[in-house]
Amino acid sequence: MTKEIGITVKKSFDFSDWYTQCVVKSGIADYSPVKGFVILRPYGYAIWEIIREILDNELKRTGHKNGFLPVLIPESLLTREKNHFQGFMPEVFWVTKSGSNDLREKLAVRPTSETLAYSMFSKWISSYRDLPLKLNFWNSALRAEIKSTKPLIRNSEFLWQEGHTAHSDESEADDEVRTILDIYRNLIEEYLAIPTISGLKTDKEKFVGAKYTTCLESLMADGKALQMATSHHLGQNFSKPFEIKYLDRDTNEQYVWQTSWGISWRIIGALIMVHGDDRGLILPPNISPVQVIIVPIYKDDSKATVKQKAYDLEKKLKDSHIRVSTDDRDEYTSGWKFNDWEMKGVPLRLNIGLRDMEQNQVELIRRDTRERFYIKERELVDETLSTLKKIQLNLLDSAKNHLQSNTRTASSLEDLISILDASGGFVACSWCGKSECEDAVKEKTMADIRIIPFDAKNNVSPCVVCGNQLTTEVYFGRAY
Amino acid sequence: MTKEIGITVKKSFDFSDWYTQCVVKSGIADYSPVKGFVILRPYGYAIWEIIREILDNELKRTGHKNGFLPVLIPESLLTREKNHFQGFMPEVFWVTKSGSNDLREKLAVRPTSETLAYSMFSKWISSYRDLPLKLNFWNSALRAEIKSTKPLIRNSEFLWQEGHTAHSDESEADDEVRTILDIYRNLIEEYLAIPTISGLKTDKEKFVGAKYTTCLESLMADGKALQMATSHHLGQNFSKPFEIKYLDRDTNEQYVWQTSWGISWRIIGALIMVHGDDRGLILPPNISPVQVIIVPIYKDDSKATVKQKAYDLEKKLKDSHIRVSTDDRDEYTSGWKFNDWEMKGVPLRLNIGLRDMEQNQVELIRRDTRERFYIKERELVDETLSTLKKIQLNLLDSAKNHLQSNTRTASSLEDLISILDASGGFVACSWCGKSECEDAVKEKTMADIRIIPFDAKNNVSPCVVCGNQLTTEVYFGRAY
Repeated sequence: MTKEIGITVKKSFDFSDWYTQCVVKSGIADYSPVKGFVILRPYGYAIWEIIREILDNELKRTGHKNGFLPVLIPESLLTREKNHFQGFMPEVFWVTKSGSNDLREKLAVRPTSETLAYSMFSKWISSYRDLPLKLNFWNSALRAEIKSTKPLIRNSEFLWQEGHTAHSDESEADDEVRTILDIYRNLIEEYLAIPTISGLKTDKEKFVGAKYTTCLESLMADGKALQMATSHHLGQNFSKPFEIKYLDRDTNEQYVWQTSWGISWRIIGALIMVHGDDRGLILPPNISPVQVIIVPIYKDDSKATVKQKAYDLEKKLKDSHIRVSTDDRDEYTSGWKFNDWEMKGVPLRLNIGLRDMEQNQVELIRRDTRERFYIKERELVDETLSTLKKIQLNLLDSAKNHLQSNTRTASSLEDLISILDASGGFVACSWCGKSECEDAVKEKTMADIRIIPFDAKNNVSPCVVCGNQLTTEVYFGRAY
Repeated sequence: MTKEIGITVKKSFDFSDWYTQCVVKSGIADYSPVKGFVILRPYGYAIWEIIREILDNELKRTGHKNGFLPVLIPESLLTREKNHFQGFMPEVFWVTKSGSNDLREKLAVRPTSETLAYSMFSKWISSYRDLPLKLNFWNSALRAEIKSTKPLIRNSEFLWQEGHTAHSDESEADDEVRTILDIYRNLIEEYLAIPTISGLKTDKEKFVGAKYTTCLESLMADGKALQMATSHHLGQNFSKPFEIKYLDRDTNEQYVWQTSWGISWRIIGALIMVHGDDRGLILPPNISPVQVIIVPIYKDDSKATVKQKAYDLEKKLKDSHIRVSTDDRDEYTSGWKFNDWEMKGVPLRLNIGLRDMEQNQVELIRRDTRERFYIKERELVDETLSTLKKIQLNLLDSAKNHLQSNTRTASSLEDLISILDASGGFVACSWCGKSECEDAVKEKTMADIRIIPFDAKNNVSPCVVCGNQLTTEVYFGRAY
């Protein structure tokens, strides 16, 4: 592998360039001809497929069903909930022509589907028998990005799922919001090995049209925060303008209570930012499309024998439900393959050559610690499984350490500013709840309130800005 | 179930109205607020998920990988292959604004992705090592329909998959085209129980930009033909304008040979049109989201006992990998449930009540023949499996009979016209290969050449239009 093919910049030297190189050179994504848009290549899509399968099973297990909504939404629907429209308007792509004809009404290319979904809900829901209605949609959303874009983190089109539910009472919707957030948290922590903080958004940062927004926030390796997922309680803010009403058991007409929630391919970006190193990606085994890559090492005269052995090992691992692949390409050298799979972040490599075969052993190389060791062939499956488990835990532990050591406490505005400037990360401090205080910090530091943790303590110290005594603990941070 | 909830028109009386009622009332799809667009509801989407899983496995087994392409394609790319652009131009939705700003270049909402995919191929392919490149995309395509629309059959947006491949030589691309067509045929015949005819499109009917198009054609219950899937050989028609070149083993620069192919949710429409009856859908077991619906029949005092029995039976069937569900809703009567599941086309219903329990039996009701019979509980799994197999075969057999008895032969233009007028269906006859003769028939009959079967005989009789002796056998038909 020549220098230009591998990652040519250190993660600590230029995080942004390093990240982009990781995304593009590993075959995760590439730039589309249209600025701000990216293409997901097979390696990136394979990760998305695994994420989708995990999440889809969980959503089905909890009673959600999938459907399909068109990508074009008439302007008249999008404008019906005023705050919602105001929020999305600047980012909407508009279809104004079909063929060479002007359309009578502009059509928005889906920025999110609340308005379209709820115009249908009002048709589908008429009785308490129709509730709860819990639908999910795997699709893409489009929002013209005016800020600088970053592959998978901020793009004009992104893959995601959006869930939309309707309930007969408010507390059932509360429960739904939390159930979904827990499902997201489990996905991100147990599979992606990324620790999260759960909590609420401030009124300023909540979803436009929501009663309240819950979210998961994580910390990237450069100390910037990333919003990983959101789950919104919509109250009756949409059911009233969209007239989503039902007859209850006493035949009284009621408006439904609603939720919406989504998670996007952005979490693949987080995966790279959190775990990667100077050699490229490091994928947690639970989410890696290839958990074990077998590289047979041979010369011309040993080729057939060693390859056959590699296929035998592959079969044994496959039979134990390990995602394994053999790189049997003759067009590339073993050294090239080692570097390539390292860059792609495959958690475990297995080398097998003639000498190993004579000793009934194989060599395992961990991607995370770069540790290498021989195991006996009869221990193959057990050792592989236990090593994958260790890698998964090690990645989560490292990320937890990073989060902990980069979450600091400030008791004054000065403190807050100096911590943010010196080290980034999350800064916990007390806030009175007023937007003006939130704005004042933002203006001075570029940081905003990422989250009000669910376990936030109240009235512990005065507001770092105005000194008011009635406060709650919030986390400030600079974010992507 | 009141009259209005069930299907209110006979299939033989008004096929079009019957079809629409089937689609909407069974919960397959619904109309979007934008004319020409439809929404896939959970029941319809569940069928699409099964189709997707079957096809996705086959495509992966044969070395294809999935990816994601943005939905917006710049005008300059779309116009690069001239015939292709001419063909799609009238149907393209154009994005001209983002927020309140005019875009510098119009963006097409994906009518198909050849041009965008191939602009990337030229970047990704540089050596023989990069070939073959075999990618697939599960997404939706948009084509503004000017003709009258019909849910799932003809809409302005449809779910599909589009495959795009590049090969080092022409014959490998030929093989790819046929491999894919065989995969489609297997899906449609073995799972959807719809017989197909395989062959070529005429030059007039082929994909705009293709060297040749292969396709599968089927016959609907009303005698109209439906194109079920297409697989195109693109020759070097795209690789030249898009400069998709590679260095071969002798370091000579070569253009790649390409294929593209797709199948859409239209086949769900075919499923309904081919198998349904006056009571609604009849789904072949291999594609039905619910293969067996268990309806516990109880009074208040037997409710708990009978429901528990139903859950036990459900578990037994589930353990044998049968897709089974129990309708345990108290808000609906058994009679309502019977009608509802019949309308939804679930192939097998299982009734269980107290009396059945006393006799260790359950009642099975076939949706296709409406036959009902008791089986002993100990035979549950075996009898269910064998009955599902019988239903699958019966539906395919019926559809084959319909296709056979509605495929007729014409030896003159008069014959052709009178058969088409009297009974529709496919009419086999000899054609000289000239577009003028094809057009002449179309003008007189509204029928076109649906397909030149792969097993067509040549020079058997003169062209039905011009009398030329050099002919090939083709199938005419009126089509959706």
